[in-house]
This record gives sequence, structure tokens and C-alpha cells, in this order.
Amino acid sequence: MKFGIAIFPSKSVQDEANSYRKRYDPHYSLIPPHITLKTPFEAEEELIKELSTELRYIAKDTKPFTVYINKVSSFAPVTNTIYFKVEPIQSLIDLNSHMHEGIFPAQGKHSFVPHITIAQNLTDDEFSDVFSSLRMKKIQFQDKVDRFHLLYQLENGSWTVYDSFVLGN
Amino acid sequence: MKFGIAIFPSKSVQDEANSYRKRYDPHYSLIPPHITLKTPFEAEEELIKELSTELRYIAKDTKPFTVYINKVSSFAPVTNTIYFKVEPIQSLIDLNSHMHEGIFPAQGKHSFVPHITIAQNLTDDEFSDVFSSLRMKKIQFQDKVDRFHLLYQLENGSWTVYDSFVLGN
Repeated sequence: MKFGIAIFPSKSVQDEANSYRKRYDPHYSLIPPHITLKTPFEAEEELIKELSTELRYIAKDTKPFTVYINKVSSFAPVTNTIYFKVEPIQSLIDLNSHMHEGIFPAQGKHSFVPHITIAQNLTDDEFSDVFSSLRMKKIQFQDKVDRFHLLYQLENGSWTVYDSFVLGN
Repeated sequence: MKFGIAIFPSKSVQDEANSYRKRYDPHYSLIPPHITLKTPFEAEEELIKELSTELRYIAKDTKPFTVYINKVSSFAPVTNTIYFKVEPIQSLIDLNSHMHEGIFPAQGKHSFVPHITIAQNLTDDEFSDVFSSLRMKKIQFQDKVDRFHLLYQLENGSWTVYDSFVLGN
């Protein structure tokens, strides 16, 4: 089964992200707007309880924190993904690194760039148009994070939440 | 803000339900297949922590249980909704009734019919066609339920999980 770990930002940030995703992100209907903490990984279904227990410890050891979103950025030229950049504060970095240790698959050595995707899989021409318009937008959010979620993927590509982990709890 | 409370059945039941929802349910992309425990209700965003605390108690007092799904049924002639009928065992009935007491809005006197919607908003002709074919399907699942989820609705109509409540925990 395929699992992933993510933070859902507040409703207002999700609504704002969706106003762009609706047009520019083919994953719009598969999962709500999110900050990925751990990219999708394969694990046996039976492992899920063990992963949950481990995530419970990680959540308990993490105080709620605030994230800052101040601009629209992109992964170009690597991919044509456009996103709300989330300032990479230490709490996010620590969560991400704990989820790549111990029983969790390490998943290569990608550097962690916290973000909320608002556009992806664009052609080069679409990307130029959309990014030049979106990068001018005044985006400013500060958002309290007090939980994250473990999700699994269904056959149609959509994601269902398995469990929620409240920070400092 | 609009909230709802639901159980997500196992991945295999969700995949099976989605194979019909994809064609026949306009809510297909708004929420994964689910058993509604409490239909959408309006509540102040600030109330959410209080609701969570209360739901934590309800979950703690409920042992994990098994649900049985043995046939496709419909709400016709009231609505053209078609669903997997979930046998109304006492644990489900108790969960539902606890969620209509105390700080939770009572929401009228609808009787509780546990189900997983697979088709809705069909025209009368579509309904006749689809239901006469689906009611012949051999559907048989028994599914362990060990948690439920509190969700809120975004502006686009989709649902995000706020918190998960593990039974007997």
C-alpha cells in the first residue's frame, strides 16, 4: 500500500490554494492542499499500526508551531511545479528528518523544500504564462500547525486519511 | 464552518465503491467513500476543539467492531441515492446517537440508516437503469472499524480531515 504524511494548512490557505489548483493542478481532486512531510512510500498494510505508533512519538515530541508563506515559487527547470513557498523553519525540518529514520524508508537524499503545490504538469508554454502571472501575486499567510496526518492512496489515485497526530500531545 | 463525522471503510471497500461512484456520484472527487455518522452541521470554527474533546470520549467508550455489507439498496422514492447497505449494528447506532447529544446539534429526527453512497443525483430514468443493474450485484464485505474522523468542508465543496479518533483508545 502507498502511504504519505502531510500537513493540511488552515481552511483559508486551502481555499486560496484551491482557487489556483482548480485550473492548474491535475491532483486537485485527489487530495486537499497540503505540505508534504514525507513523499509517497510503499509499505505493507500490516506496518501501518507500527508507523502510527512511531508518528505518535514524533508528534508528542514536537510543539505546535507557526509557518510563514510569503511568496509563489517554482521547481523549474527541474519540474514545472508552482507552489506557495513555506519558510523552512526548524520544526518542519525536524519533522521531515524524523520521518526518514528508524522504521521509515529513507527515500533518497532529496533536500526538503516545504511547499504547497498550486500548479503542476504544465507544458513549458503554460508554465511560463502561469508562473509569470502567479509570481507577482501578493501571498501572505501565517498559519498555526498543530497536527499532521498519515494517508494512504486508493486505486483511483486519491488519498484517504488513516490517522491524525496532534503535536505536543 | 461546516463539519461532518464519518467512518472510512477499508481500502478494498473504498476501491469497490469508487468503481461505481466514478460514474454515478457527483461527490466522487469531494470525499472518499464513507459511512456518515453525523450529517454536515454548521459550527463556529472555535468550537472545533471542544467537539474533538467530546469525540475523544465517545471513541474511548466504544470498542472496535465489525460492519457487514451484504447488498445494494436505495432511498427511492425519497431520493435516487443508491448505496451499499451497512447492517445497523448497535455500535453504529450508539455512535450516531452520542453525536446528536450534548454539545452536538440534534439535527432533526431522521432515522439513521448506515450506508456507503455509490450513486446520487441521478435522473429517474438513470436511476431505474442503474439500480436494476446494481441491485443484482453480489456485494459482500465484512470490515473492521477501529476509528472515525471529524472533517470540515472547503469552499469548493470538498472535505478535509481535521482529526481522527481511534476506538477504545
